[in-house]
Amino acid sequence: MIKIGIAGLGTVGAGVVRLLNDNAEQIASRVGQAITVAAVSARDSKRVRDCDLSGMSWVDDPLQIPNHPDVDVVIELIGGADGIALQIAEKASAERKPFVTANKALIAKHGAGLAKQFEAASVPLAFEASVAGGIPIIKTIREGLAANRISIVRGILNGTCNYILTRMAADNLGFADALAEAQQRGYAEADPAADIDGHDTANKLAILAALAFGGEPSLATIQIDGIRRVTPLDLQFAAELDCRVKLLGVAHHTSHGLSQRVGASLVPTKSPLANVHGVTNAVMVRGDFVGDVMLEGRGAGAEPTASAVVADIIDIARGVRMPAFGRPAAQLTKTVSVAALPMRYYVRLEVMDKPGVVADISAILRDQSISIESLIQRGRSVTESVPVVMIFHETPADAMRHSIDAIARVATVVEKPCVMPIED
Amino acid sequence: MIKIGIAGLGTVGAGVVRLLNDNAEQIASRVGQAITVAAVSARDSKRVRDCDLSGMSWVDDPLQIPNHPDVDVVIELIGGADGIALQIAEKASAERKPFVTANKALIAKHGAGLAKQFEAASVPLAFEASVAGGIPIIKTIREGLAANRISIVRGILNGTCNYILTRMAADNLGFADALAEAQQRGYAEADPAADIDGHDTANKLAILAALAFGGEPSLATIQIDGIRRVTPLDLQFAAELDCRVKLLGVAHHTSHGLSQRVGASLVPTKSPLANVHGVTNAVMVRGDFVGDVMLEGRGAGAEPTASAVVADIIDIARGVRMPAFGRPAAQLTKTVSVAALPMRYYVRLEVMDKPGVVADISAILRDQSISIESLIQRGRSVTESVPVVMIFHETPADAMRHSIDAIARVATVVEKPCVMPIED
Repeated sequence: MIKIGIAGLGTVGAGVVRLLNDNAEQIASRVGQAITVAAVSARDSKRVRDCDLSGMSWVDDPLQIPNHPDVDVVIELIGGADGIALQIAEKASAERKPFVTANKALIAKHGAGLAKQFEAASVPLAFEASVAGGIPIIKTIREGLAANRISIVRGILNGTCNYILTRMAADNLGFADALAEAQQRGYAEADPAADIDGHDTANKLAILAALAFGGEPSLATIQIDGIRRVTPLDLQFAAELDCRVKLLGVAHHTSHGLSQRVGASLVPTKSPLANVHGVTNAVMVRGDFVGDVMLEGRGAGAEPTASAVVADIIDIARGVRMPAFGRPAAQLTKTVSVAALPMRYYVRLEVMDKPGVVADISAILRDQSISIESLIQRGRSVTESVPVVMIFHETPADAMRHSIDAIARVATVVEKPCVMPIED
Repeated sequence: MIKIGIAGLGTVGAGVVRLLNDNAEQIASRVGQAITVAAVSARDSKRVRDCDLSGMSWVDDPLQIPNHPDVDVVIELIGGADGIALQIAEKASAERKPFVTANKALIAKHGAGLAKQFEAASVPLAFEASVAGGIPIIKTIREGLAANRISIVRGILNGTCNYILTRMAADNLGFADALAEAQQRGYAEADPAADIDGHDTANKLAILAALAFGGEPSLATIQIDGIRRVTPLDLQFAAELDCRVKLLGVAHHTSHGLSQRVGASLVPTKSPLANVHGVTNAVMVRGDFVGDVMLEGRGAGAEPTASAVVADIIDIARGVRMPAFGRPAAQLTKTVSVAALPMRYYVRLEVMDKPGVVADISAILRDQSISIESLIQRGRSVTESVPVVMIFHETPADAMRHSIDAIARVATVVEKPCVMPIED
């Protein structure tokens, strides 16, 4: 019998308890032994929870879970990049007990160091649930595609943003209205910044990039942008270009090095990623032998996340022992970011429709040696701004950024331009 | 260093040799040791192959691969449900050497017995490449989703059929023309029967069902149909019903038991499976906690298949030891099939447009207590047959079959009806 201890009984923790109870027989048959919850810890022992805690020891201090005598495997579901979650992880490694977490912030920030500690202790560190909920993308990259040199990982990793963008496109909703609806339906937090500004996606991308490319997870080398500046007009223009707008995390490895970015992007409708709607997550991985593989499923919620946490526990119970990032931690290299390869770009400006505005912009682009593939100006107004959409041929990221900065300073350009790469 | 021996150097065998050569450094870094090809065997030692065999022992008799002194892991890429492939497998288990195969027919027919033999020998039996090429669907079901009770596995498992159906729908091609085009492009064999009549899909479904539901793989319990009877007209009618036609393998577990079927099916366009085009494969798995997870990628070809074969070798080299079907072989139950749950059906008849034909058909349906959701009759002709399409409410499979048999005997019904379930 494998006895686990759970620190943190929020929605995911309660889901793990429920799963291990509901599917106990199934799991015991697969593993060859039972997995039971021996001890739990959470802030409030009085709170009514959506799971049955009978037969489990209640531990007031979550830091006492790793050294609890009945606990073989430590499960951390408290969250946060540092603090108590990190302390529990370090204590588990000191106690030489396997450690399972759903904590993306912890792994994105401390993953390389923890991998070394757990390797030194010869016990597993596992975090399948930290990326894309129930989708087994970490196992897929680390094991299923381990024969490949991977060139690109592209993911829709945040259900909140994908829901908002899907609703905006379907019903021509504004960003604020779609966000409010997402909050009402429980798909967005009261403070949605971590989701809509791309930080949640960046944490997940850092973990996937480390697995795919053998670097230490690194947030500092990711260029992060969100979806606040996307308007229904952008979704309409995107549709005219036979594209959809998605918040993507992209890690791209070329002979120049690794580039990592998070941001709203135009995805051609013929790409499988373009057809991932609502709160669904998806990750596309390109390997040199396997080609493109895509995984799609529910990226959040108590049940899918519990599915991933328990899959890690089952691996541990089955005796699977593998470096956390798919290669010995000492071999993980420092992650250095390089500028993205030249890409096509979509840029929407809001300009006052005065003579000379196009000439001003054209001069800036000429000075940066950037050429436009097409320009759409629609509507005229003497009092209000009008949108001008430009599609750029493949353009280096630096040149694009400098041009946009310069264009934003033109007096007739009235708001910060909306810039999105086109993921061909 | 792990030394492998390969029996069979067709396109997949050559792909495995190429992969292990091209990505040797990458793989050694991930595994912590090198994987090299020590010995190879194939029918014709003179044939020019798309890989470099230098440094490898040539063995004339493939049966000498398992007991070759330099071989640690045996790779079987010859094919066939019995004969030499089975002998190599049995010899590998007798020699207590891990065995990796891409052979779906072997595993679908002998998987349960081999699993027992290899378990008794305490060495791994692995067959990721036997289903859906490079897509790691076996690992996903056995490990990534191991916490779930699975209720349904649905797959587009045959690239030949999906290519044919995609081409028929896109360009209104007839079945024979689309097949000829597939053959010309190398997507279909000269004798396409195994693909287009559903047997290839059935082999793969038997393996996936065993992994998902814990029964021995069993071809005998699968109801198998192919795509020969699908016409461009059916694809048009399907489109009007907001569906696409796909050859699906479906294993569905309910409180009544397990039903397994292979056949052309109508898939609503909103389902991710409907958007899988061309030679691409995809598998959707529904778990009680994870919800629906879909994997999509290249299901055949030297490179993707080699990716899966080498992933198995890497697992073995990393020391992963796990029951082949995800639970101890002694626990695999005899697979018993039950009739599918009632489903909606699409039925197209070709009838001579004479008075009384609809009355005759209606009488048959009334006698079977089957009710029609809608009926479309289009076009009139006094000399030629006209199509009549009926959509049925949820109908038990037996009642549907009896009705269709009776309808096919009506004098004015001029060819065998085209019957497809609707996968809602």
